Amino acid sequence: MSKNVAVVLAGCGVFDGSEIHEAVITILNLHKIGANITFFAPNVVQADVVNHLEGKPDSNARNVLVESARIARGSVLDLADFSADDFDAIVFPGGFGAAKNLCTFAFDGANCSVNIDVQKAISAMLMQNKPMGFLCIAPVIAAKAIGDGVKLTIGTDSATASAVEAMGAKHIDCSADDFVVDEKFKVYSTPAYMLASNTAEIDLGVSKMLASMLK
Amino acid sequence: MSKNVAVVLAGCGVFDGSEIHEAVITILNLHKIGANITFFAPNVVQADVVNHLEGKPDSNARNVLVESARIARGSVLDLADFSADDFDAIVFPGGFGAAKNLCTFAFDGANCSVNIDVQKAISAMLMQNKPMGFLCIAPVIAAKAIGDGVKLTIGTDSATASAVEAMGAKHIDCSADDFVVDEKFKVYSTPAYMLASNTAEIDLGVSKMLASMLK
Repeated sequence: MSKNVAVVLAGCGVFDGSEIHEAVITILNLHKIGANITFFAPNVVQADVVNHLEGKPDSNARNVLVESARIARGSVLDLADFSADDFDAIVFPGGFGAAKNLCTFAFDGANCSVNIDVQKAISAMLMQNKPMGFLCIAPVIAAKAIGDGVKLTIGTDSATASAVEAMGAKHIDCSADDFVVDEKFKVYSTPAYMLASNTAEIDLGVSKMLASMLK
Repeated sequence: MSKNVAVVLAGCGVFDGSEIHEAVITILNLHKIGANITFFAPNVVQADVVNHLEGKPDSNARNVLVESARIARGSVLDLADFSADDFDAIVFPGGFGAAKNLCTFAFDGANCSVNIDVQKAISAMLMQNKPMGFLCIAPVIAAKAIGDGVKLTIGTDSATASAVEAMGAKHIDCSADDFVVDEKFKVYSTPAYMLASNTAEIDLGVSKMLASMLK
């Protein structure tokens, strides 16, 4: 039986949405192991829009669900309709969107709040003890939503690691080609672009993490 | 010596820009073989903007170079500044953007025109007999820009293949896990999402094609 995996997107582009390379490397590795993917994103206005060429704010508002559809090739569901019953695992790629649109960590640090549909999806997966994967900066969502000493990694950045611990998680240093697992909460994390210098390194960490999550 | 490869983007999203999965699978396979990537895109307004969730036109204009920067993580150059002297190869991912922004095939079929900077880049690579790779629908650009019996594939779609031949190219049917090469013009092509049902299939064709291009 092939596994059913939910991939939660946060827009489309590293500075205001999902990191595109991390999202596609997640998709590719899931396809390689024969998983079925369903994309989700919250139906909310993006926290901001960044002109990725100039690194400056853009004045036209964009919607997280609509922009996520670019990565999903049109087929993406409102995260409000997520049911843990339908999935064997859930994965959150990184990018600033994970810290701006799925939670407010980019603005509020350890005092951030988590999007209500993200919180509900994580809580539902926890109740069923199903594996959850977090790439790059996305583990801050797990730190805030779960706390309780959940073990995870955001790589080796000490400031971010301190914030993760301030939210009640246990940070573990990890290289880009590896991952960290919390066996109790079934939370998996890999540093991706928090440390990786190219996509081949990300592929190493993500492929290992997904294989372990879905074994 | 690692190879220097130019990747030409056409925006960000399958319906009005570069197909994101194809672009990232190109990037990943280039990184795996140790190539240095420089991203380019024409600095023009997109032919259209499509709401990828609803499949409908969006009224806010977007710029091809600016949106391509989402895939390139900020670092993308104006294709007008491309010099064939600096590169060992050039690759064009697919998506409707290749047929809307790099040429007008999506609107004009075999009577399409090619963006002037795209035409110049292809002509310069031809003059130096350096390899050029085209994914998915992007080979229509090579058909128009080169003609002269250049051998290429867009998969097996007979209507598109007929248009390719009307532009003076020679179409060869090909599966998603393989590629076609024209040894004279050093034009490489693989069907990607013209035929592939998932990213793992695209990865097979693209990895083979790039390995052959850069051997």
